[in-house]
Amino acid sequence: MDTKTYGRVLVLDGCIQCTEKDEFSYQEMMTFVPLTCHPNPKSVLIIGGGDGGVAREVVKYPTVETVVQCEIDAKVVEVSKKFLPFMASGFSSPKLTLNIGDGLEFVSKHKNEFDVIITDSSDPIGPAESLFGEKYYKLCEEALKPGGIICSQGENMWYHSQIIRTMLDFCKTMFPKVSYGYTCIPTYPGGQIGFLLCSKSSETVFEEPMKQLSEVDIEAMNLRYYNTNIHRAAFVLPQFAKKALLY
Amino acid sequence: MDTKTYGRVLVLDGCIQCTEKDEFSYQEMMTFVPLTCHPNPKSVLIIGGGDGGVAREVVKYPTVETVVQCEIDAKVVEVSKKFLPFMASGFSSPKLTLNIGDGLEFVSKHKNEFDVIITDSSDPIGPAESLFGEKYYKLCEEALKPGGIICSQGENMWYHSQIIRTMLDFCKTMFPKVSYGYTCIPTYPGGQIGFLLCSKSSETVFEEPMKQLSEVDIEAMNLRYYNTNIHRAAFVLPQFAKKALLY
Repeated sequence: MDTKTYGRVLVLDGCIQCTEKDEFSYQEMMTFVPLTCHPNPKSVLIIGGGDGGVAREVVKYPTVETVVQCEIDAKVVEVSKKFLPFMASGFSSPKLTLNIGDGLEFVSKHKNEFDVIITDSSDPIGPAESLFGEKYYKLCEEALKPGGIICSQGENMWYHSQIIRTMLDFCKTMFPKVSYGYTCIPTYPGGQIGFLLCSKSSETVFEEPMKQLSEVDIEAMNLRYYNTNIHRAAFVLPQFAKKALLY
Repeated sequence: MDTKTYGRVLVLDGCIQCTEKDEFSYQEMMTFVPLTCHPNPKSVLIIGGGDGGVAREVVKYPTVETVVQCEIDAKVVEVSKKFLPFMASGFSSPKLTLNIGDGLEFVSKHKNEFDVIITDSSDPIGPAESLFGEKYYKLCEEALKPGGIICSQGENMWYHSQIIRTMLDFCKTMFPKVSYGYTCIPTYPGGQIGFLLCSKSSETVFEEPMKQLSEVDIEAMNLRYYNTNIHRAAFVLPQFAKKALLY
């Protein structure tokens, strides 16, 4: 739909998925936080992300050679191409291969293939439920190459600290490095959304990116939210969340 | 009013002013960011803040000896004492003197008196309009002692970058140090609110507090949002805001 103050808006099952005004915060942080924490990301898998926004950002990154995406709902892709061309532009990149199907099933068929897996899902009630489970994370771990990194939509620390804590707990049994960050985005519930990061390399420090993008890099990729300082700040938790999520 | 998920909520002229669930983010950041940036804050003036939340935080700070507050609306104080005791608790501190009257007029009658002035106002349309003007800031500058610091409610970078930029511009003509930070608070529009900081001392570095509160300090003051790292992170702006607000 079109709105007066947020531009064009995509709504799925009654929930805002993205608005033209602020979508870049989510897409850029979900993309450049994991990519800049990997020493040389070449092969990226996107699960979900049917609006094309994450793909649009991933294909910008110079080292990335191939992007495979698996979205469960062909209609979302179709609607996005028709009504949200500013999101769907990523679909036209020659780097990208798009599959329509179930994310968990797709991941289960790939082993040791990807440097980074980004899970851009809707919330855990509904079609994306399986993408928040321990089984999915285990399959992702197997689908990653050595040193690979996962970044997943991680809900909101003000509302879902129990879910987040549960996910952090099981991720810590599978990966040597796990962290939780967040970004501000006015049109998501509570004005922010988290992301859960896991790395197979014990040398990853999510709070301090390996690759620091310069102002020139940022201009070249037309970034509107991400910069190296906001990457660092994304992992700084307020006191209540530190207590609820870390230990 | 009482709500299912946000506890007790104060609404003025149709706008949410605070909710029991998340008010601490605003009160703590509006208070401890300026106080920890001052070498020895003894005398604090609060303009507005009729719910008592900022006063509740200010009186906790060990160096603070006297707190003067000027709120225009006696009814807000009355309602808060009756229905929001968790906010109004600051009013019972022996450090506090409460005045009912116009903030701009009150400030104009005080010269060289305060170490920190916190302006906890509603938005610039309505009774708080004068508190966003150049004249008010000039009067605050005069009401401050040497080295004094101002912290004011500073609107939202996603919606009000023009207003914020205008205020930063005129503040920079009056104060050697000016900065803009923000905090996340789900029930404010867009899920965040900014604060505008000015210092009469060129040695103030708002991004790096002079006093770093320890975990023991934080426990002793029962802080739920503020810590030294979130103080630093509050000044890190996303790329679009950096461009709109800084130069």
